[in-house]
Parts: sequence; C-alpha cells; structure tokens
Amino acid sequence: MADPNRPLRIIPLGGVGEIGKNMYVFEYGDDIVVIDCGLMFPDEEMFGIDLVVPDVTYLRERRDQVRAFLITHAHEDHVGGLPYVLPNFPGVPVYASTLARGLLGAKFKEHRLTDHPLVALEPGDELEIGPFRAIPFRIGHSIPDAMGIALRTPVGTVVHTGDFKFDHTPVDGKPSDFATLARLGQEGVICLLSDSTRAENPGYTPSERTVGEAFREIIEPLEGRVIVATFASNIARIQQVFDAAEAFGRKVAVVGRSMEQNVRIAVDLGYLRYPSSGVVAKDQISQTPPGRLVIATTGAQGEPMSGLARMANRDHRFVEIEPGDTVIVSASPIPGNEEYVARTIDNLFKAGANVYYHTIKRAHVSGHASQEELKLMLGLTRPRYFIPIHGEFRMMVQHGRLAVEMGVRPENVFIIENGQPIEIYPDGRARRGTPVPAGYVFVDGLSVGDVGEVVLRDRRALAADGMFIVVVTVDKQTGNLVSRPEIVTRGFVPLNERDPLITEAAERVVAAIENPGDHISEIALLKSQIKESVSRFLYEQTKRRPMVLPVVVEV
Amino acid sequence: MADPNRPLRIIPLGGVGEIGKNMYVFEYGDDIVVIDCGLMFPDEEMFGIDLVVPDVTYLRERRDQVRAFLITHAHEDHVGGLPYVLPNFPGVPVYASTLARGLLGAKFKEHRLTDHPLVALEPGDELEIGPFRAIPFRIGHSIPDAMGIALRTPVGTVVHTGDFKFDHTPVDGKPSDFATLARLGQEGVICLLSDSTRAENPGYTPSERTVGEAFREIIEPLEGRVIVATFASNIARIQQVFDAAEAFGRKVAVVGRSMEQNVRIAVDLGYLRYPSSGVVAKDQISQTPPGRLVIATTGAQGEPMSGLARMANRDHRFVEIEPGDTVIVSASPIPGNEEYVARTIDNLFKAGANVYYHTIKRAHVSGHASQEELKLMLGLTRPRYFIPIHGEFRMMVQHGRLAVEMGVRPENVFIIENGQPIEIYPDGRARRGTPVPAGYVFVDGLSVGDVGEVVLRDRRALAADGMFIVVVTVDKQTGNLVSRPEIVTRGFVPLNERDPLITEAAERVVAAIENPGDHISEIALLKSQIKESVSRFLYEQTKRRPMVLPVVVEV
Repeated sequence: MADPNRPLRIIPLGGVGEIGKNMYVFEYGDDIVVIDCGLMFPDEEMFGIDLVVPDVTYLRERRDQVRAFLITHAHEDHVGGLPYVLPNFPGVPVYASTLARGLLGAKFKEHRLTDHPLVALEPGDELEIGPFRAIPFRIGHSIPDAMGIALRTPVGTVVHTGDFKFDHTPVDGKPSDFATLARLGQEGVICLLSDSTRAENPGYTPSERTVGEAFREIIEPLEGRVIVATFASNIARIQQVFDAAEAFGRKVAVVGRSMEQNVRIAVDLGYLRYPSSGVVAKDQISQTPPGRLVIATTGAQGEPMSGLARMANRDHRFVEIEPGDTVIVSASPIPGNEEYVARTIDNLFKAGANVYYHTIKRAHVSGHASQEELKLMLGLTRPRYFIPIHGEFRMMVQHGRLAVEMGVRPENVFIIENGQPIEIYPDGRARRGTPVPAGYVFVDGLSVGDVGEVVLRDRRALAADGMFIVVVTVDKQTGNLVSRPEIVTRGFVPLNERDPLITEAAERVVAAIENPGDHISEIALLKSQIKESVSRFLYEQTKRRPMVLPVVVEV
Repeated sequence: MADPNRPLRIIPLGGVGEIGKNMYVFEYGDDIVVIDCGLMFPDEEMFGIDLVVPDVTYLRERRDQVRAFLITHAHEDHVGGLPYVLPNFPGVPVYASTLARGLLGAKFKEHRLTDHPLVALEPGDELEIGPFRAIPFRIGHSIPDAMGIALRTPVGTVVHTGDFKFDHTPVDGKPSDFATLARLGQEGVICLLSDSTRAENPGYTPSERTVGEAFREIIEPLEGRVIVATFASNIARIQQVFDAAEAFGRKVAVVGRSMEQNVRIAVDLGYLRYPSSGVVAKDQISQTPPGRLVIATTGAQGEPMSGLARMANRDHRFVEIEPGDTVIVSASPIPGNEEYVARTIDNLFKAGANVYYHTIKRAHVSGHASQEELKLMLGLTRPRYFIPIHGEFRMMVQHGRLAVEMGVRPENVFIIENGQPIEIYPDGRARRGTPVPAGYVFVDGLSVGDVGEVVLRDRRALAADGMFIVVVTVDKQTGNLVSRPEIVTRGFVPLNERDPLITEAAERVVAAIENPGDHISEIALLKSQIKESVSRFLYEQTKRRPMVLPVVVEV
C-alpha cells in the first residue's frame, strides 16, 4: 500500500519555457528516475559560451537515490547534457532504444564515458525500477525509434510523451503505439506531460512522407546538381533523400562530419537502406556529372561553420556552390537561428544557386504535434493532471488551454518553471512543492561551470563599450606617482596616445591621485578614485561607458 | 535633346539586401536627386553600436550637384539617416508630404537642424529639379500620406514605389493613385524600382481595415483592461485603437514617448481624430476602471526598453500588467527581433495577462505588397528595366522572378548590391556601371563614424573570451623586471591572484622577458613575446583565447 503522506514528485531540472531543454525527475521516497538530460545552445547574450547544461545539484545531493536515466530519443536537447552530468552518477544505467544507443555510444566514446552502462530499452518493453515500472511506447518524431515513457508509480500512472507527432504514414513503417496509449488512458492516467512545441499551430502536422514527395517534385525536372541540407539526425529525411536520388538515377554524397557519422551508425543498425551503388565518396563529387548527383549535408539552420554555409561561401573542401546548382533547405529556422538561415540563403542565391526553402516550398515538416494531435494525445490518455512541457512559455499556456478544452480542470493544469516540483499523493490530490535548486551550467572551452553570471556581465559590458585600462605606477615608500599613467583601450573608440581624450583622461588620473594619503591602506581607494573620475569624464565626452580598469603598480 | 552618351545613373547608397535600408541616388550629368535616407538598427554582431547610417562619401564628393532629397514617407528606415547626412548638405531642400514634414520637424529639432529647408511635396504635385521632374503619387502603407515618386528624366520615366501596398479600403479613405500609375505605364516607364519586402508571400496583403475588425472582436467581450502595442508611427492603426475603444465605451491612454509625440503631431495636422472625451492622461490610468480603458503603447517589437517590455517586467511608471489584462501585440516580429518579441510575450503571460499575438489572432497586417499586388504594380507600369528594392536578397530574387513572369526580359532585371550603379542611356540601353564608394557608418554614443571594423573586431573578441591584462614593470636602465607581473582579467574565467592559472601565467611572463636584450628598442618585441607565450599557455589550459594585453611600464 502506498503511504498516504508520501507523494510522487515530478521536477523539471532541464529548464522549461525559454530555457527549454529537457530533463524531468520522478521521485518517490528514496527512488529517483530521470527522463532525458538535454543541453541548450547559448542565446545571444551568453557571450562565448559553447553549451548550457542543467544544474543537477539537486540530484547530486541525492546521488544514491538515482536509479536510472531513461532516454526518449537521442536529440541533443534530450541527451546532450549526459556527458557533463553522468560523471556525477557512475554506474547509474542509461536506458535507450537501439538507434539512440548507437548515437549515444559515439557520444560516450568522444567524452571517454565508454564504461558507463548503456542498456537496451525498446518500445514495448517493460522495466521495473524500484517502485516504478517504466513502459516505453513508440511515438512518431524526426528521428527513428523515438519513445514516450509511461511510468507506473505508487500514486498512479504518469505519461511523458517525449517529443512527438502522430504520423500515420511514417517512413520507417512503424506508427505510434495508439493501443498502449488507449489502454493506459482506460486504466487511468494521473498525470500527462506532453510536448508543447507546436501548441500554437492548428490542425495536424503533415506526415514526414510528404517531404519525400516534395523532394521528388523538385528534383525530377532538374539537370544540375542538387544539394539537400537537413538535420544530421533525421534519418527518415536522409532515407528520403536516398530514395528520391535513386528514383531519378542520381547517387548521393553525404558531406558533413555529424551526418556521415549518423549515416554510418544508422546503416550499421539497419535504420537506413540504400543500394551500395547509390553512394558517392566525398572526394569523387567533382568527378560525378552534376545531373547524376545529390549531396546531402548539414547546416539547414545556417550554422556559420556548417557544410552548407561553407559551400555558400566557397569555403568548403569538397563542394562549392555554382550557378546551376539547386539547394533544398529541408528545415524551418529554429527560434534564434532566423538570421543565420536568412544569411545562408542569401549567400546561396548570390553564389548562383536556386534555393528551395521554408517560405517557398514545403520541403520540410515538423517533428512535433499540432493542436489536433495534442488533443488526440489528451483524448487517449485522459489525464487528471496536465503538465505542458517542451516549448516556450506562451506555447505551454496554449497547450494548457487545449487541455482544458479536452476536459482537464483548469486548476489541474500546472505550468511550471524550472525546479518547481509537482507533488501527487496516493489519494489523488496534487500541489506545487517547494522549489528545489535548479538552473544551468555554462560549458566554455574546457571549463564546465566556472563561467557564471559575473563573467557574462563583464563580457556584455566589454562587448557594448569596450575597455579603458589605466596603469599608474606609484612609489612604494612615498605613494607618489613615478611616471605618467599608461592608458590602453580596446573596443572603445580608436585612439592613439596623443588623442586629447587620452591626454585629458591621464590628467584626470593625476588629479585623482594627488595626495592619496596613506598609500598602503589606500590602494583600493586610489583605484576607485581613478575609476570613478575616468568613467565620469569618458561618459561626458562620449556618452559611452567602457569598462574602466585601474591597475596600480608599486615600485 | 538628350546627349546620347550621357546616361541616367541610379545608385543605391543606403544598402540593399541584408543591409537593407533606403537611399537611392538619381544622377544625370551634374544633377543629383536623392530619394530617402534611411538608417538601420545594428545586427547582433555590431556590439554596442546604436545606429547604422549610409556612407555618403560619393555624394559628399559631389556636394554641389545634390539638388534635393525627396522623402517617400517618414519611417526610420527611410528618413533616419537624414540627421547624420544633412549636415554635409546645408541648404539642400528636403521635400516631403504633410505628415512626414510634421514628424521630420520634430526630428530636426532634436538634432538642431531646424534651419534646414523642409519643403512641401504632396501626392499629385509636380516638381521641377534641374533635368528631372518629380511626380509623387499616393500609395498605401502603414503610415498616412506615403508616396511613390515618378521621376521624368532625359532618358525616360523612372518609377520608385517607396514602401507600398494596394489597400482598397484604407482607414484614411485615400486609396493608392492607380490613375497616375496607369498613365505613366501607358506613356512608357523605362525603369521600375519596387518594394520587395513581401515578394515571397503569395496573394494579397489584407487591408489595414481588417485590423480594426480584429480589435473590435477581441475587445467587445472583455471586462478588464486592454493594452494594444503597435508601431508609434502607424497612425491608421492608432486611429483604429481609438475607434474600437469608443465603440465599447472605453477611453484611450497613449503611453510611450514616441507614440505620444506622433499622436500630438498627427492630431495637430488632422491625421488622427477622436473625441476629446475619448482620452485619458497617463497619470489617470490607475483611477480609470479597467473595463473603461484601452492603453495604446509602443514595444510591439519587444524592444527591452519600450513601454510594453517594461509593463511586462513591472518596471513601468504608469502601467503594470496584472491578471485580467488583455494585451494585443499588433505587429509581426521584424527579422532579428523574434527573440525579443517571444520573451516579451512570455513575460506578459507570466504576469497574468492574456495575450493576442501574431500566431494566435490576426491583429496585424503588413504595410507591404504581396505577390499579386507586386504583379499589379508591374502590370500598371510595364517597365523595360526592373530593379527590386527593399528586402533581403532572396526576396529581391523572388521579386525579379515575378517581373519576368510579368514580361520583363530576364536580362533587364537588375539585382544590385549597394553602390552598384545602373546606367540607362537615351537610346534605351542599360548596363551596370563601375561600383562607387558605399557602405555604412556606425553611430555609437556621440560618435558618428569613429567606430569601425577594428573596434568591432575587438568587441567581438572581448565578448567571446574576455581579456587577460599583464602589466610588467621594468627598470628603464637595465631592462630588468622591477616587480612581479600584475595580472588582471575580466570576462575570462573567474580567478583570484592565487589561482594556479594566474601564478603560472606570471611565471611564463617572467620567463618570456628574461634577457630581453636592448630594452629600449625592444619594448614592442617584449610585448609580443609576453602576448604570445601567455596566449599559448592560456589556450593549452582552457581552450579559450582571451585578448591578452601586455602593458610594459618603465621606471
């Protein structure tokens, strides 16, 4: 019997809303399972940051209670945090389906985590973990073998959809598992956590198969080369590139490190099939007649270092865009990437290519469910409580409205922020718990977590107005100035030493440090005097606020 | 008779494509007229820059030939450059229609340009300027009294559409001047320059009037406050806010410096009409019952310092968003602003408001023509040559395709970059001329043009990895180190003086400056040795490249 005072706690730790990456903690008594562990890419104000991963302080403090990481699918926003988080949890198994294990295996190797247990969990399996029973079910998404996970818990069944859409005609022939969802719904679902990414979009998301039709329509009449850019992990999309190429007697060259690696893994595991004569090595591209070639590559998000951007800039080792080329950008810009994508498309046009992109031709569909599918998920599972996940705050609000339309009571919709637990009791009550430590950790070069808000604030200040360094040398004994202040500026306004702004600033410094009093105890004071007088002077003169850094050298 | 060897030269100087702001030069012999003079807002890589205005070196070198600036309408991307450019052209008249003169008058006052001649030019007027005759014609846009300009020149008639749409039911009752366009087309148009902003959009752009209908539908059932955010210059939109408020017995409070100023000017000039009882002063907002109030404000682009963003953050002097408020964001995000807009909408929801925004309800229409309207413009004017203007490069490409569909010969479509002249001869031939100096000038605080690529490059470097300053003090006579190197870092990783990274870097410095040789001539060498050894050390240790700045003080 479940202890009536002991709740199931559901806690987002990967960020929700605008932070928006995925990691959900399910805690009952002394047992914790974690679903997914994503990363996010830095926003424009996180200068110099490479990656952002979840702060797992809460889990680290309960290290011995963490029983398992369950993975819904191997997209970066669901697994990218693992290499940074797992070292805290040696021996705690990571469960994932076949393709996800393939992709994770490569990732673990890269991060020297090959000893970490990576265990099979396939759609349709059932897995006992302490007081939980995990029931992964197949769901459609833009990567094969994506799963949602139902968790039977002592307070009832919780369903976590993962990222999903309902694709009735999936490219791999394996549709979503409606039967399990319906059965769970009939037996009773206490809480649904469901993907909100496209909760603003009415109707249904089209089938992935429609993209293949678009590829064929575009490619059929062409005589020149075709370049298709898409996500490296979208194996079904890549399959359709191979299929369309084959239909018109073209061979495919796969270009781009991540896509080449994923294709290799997908072929090995049987998720991608093409005739061995259907492929061309990268270094054979120039020897292949343009009309016999399709190049599949990365960079559909306009990433400046990606294959496509480099091809557009004629900076790629194997492929340069030429007049006569046709480029299909098979993606929509992810929020935040709009300008990169626009710039890449412009550069492709300037290089002479014809370009099919999101506003021109439907050569892309989303991997996320639209409103009618979200309603279907709600209708199948009929949850008492509803937690919208994955998506910006406004999308979660819209998803909450859909849930209410579908019969969830408004007070049973929990739109929660990162670290906000929802506690569900065996008698069916639920409430918000006390927030737990949550946040994010910056990965910057080799450092994980060293760079924090102070460093970022400095970078922002430096980016806005540059810096103004004032070096003064004072006599250790007398406290008197030994030489003229040295001034160095970068990122401010272009100045040389004889510029009046420099000479006058130096005079202000000299004035500020006259009679500095007892110099030993007063170095901090001296610095602040210099900083204040120079900052004020520069603002008056330029209306800018460079970072003023006084350095006092004693000799 | 026109000299057969003397061409009309049409030159974009305001940027085209991704730079994308408006300034077109029309030059014939010794006479130059300029249409528009816009600014652009900095993109995300232009750290700390406030504004970007056109580089007018080409015009400055021909100062005596510049006869007039003709203004199509007073949006910032068409007039924002004037305050920075006009001081180079004292006495050269600026011609504009009534509302544009009102708005420009305020701008000139702010920039102490009140002596600069600002002359009336209304739709339907004709104006002789040297060898040109300017014929402004009324056109629909998201500001009243917008004009296109036809220029009769010795080589034929050129039509510049300005920004436009064909709105058959404009809010001010003044539709586009089809008659003049048709007449010009019949007489013969040698070249059309036309707005490409929405060349990717099929069909027609809906009438501005549909927004008023949406306002009424949204507001009618509401009992709480309504806040409508839109562009400060969209007088027709603001008129519709007043009309919708009046229809449901609400008063309007206008909040936001630029909108208040524009409303004052528009009322004075008769472009905005409402009953005097229909308005509430800002400081009376809290005394007005929520159900009797509509607040019109700025910030529909999510600008962090705008009215709406501050209201959402509860940081506004007169209005804080409260549960029960309804916010209508009457705009679509301009490319580059998507994230700001998303953040503001999220914050409004978090503050408890219900929000209508671009993906949820059509409470906004564009001021730019869609494909069918662009074809209509091409069909009315039937130009021999076609230059797509205004819009990103890919949009100009699409617009060029529409022109070809409409009968313009493919080789007569000129998609040109900034500074690229098109030369049209009296016999009807046209060709690309030699590019002229063109580019942009950064406005940063009080400085115009001081900040260039070098400063920006430094800011980018500082933003990415911060800086690492090494101060060494050497004896002027011996060149020996006098004291331990001082190290100051900002924006790199948080370090204190006893951090091994600091102490080891200091050791590298000491090693690098041992035996520095003839110190006087070698200070530059010394600096570069320090820089190189420290940079290498830091990269090895952290995989980051902070800006290393060596300062050598001689005592």
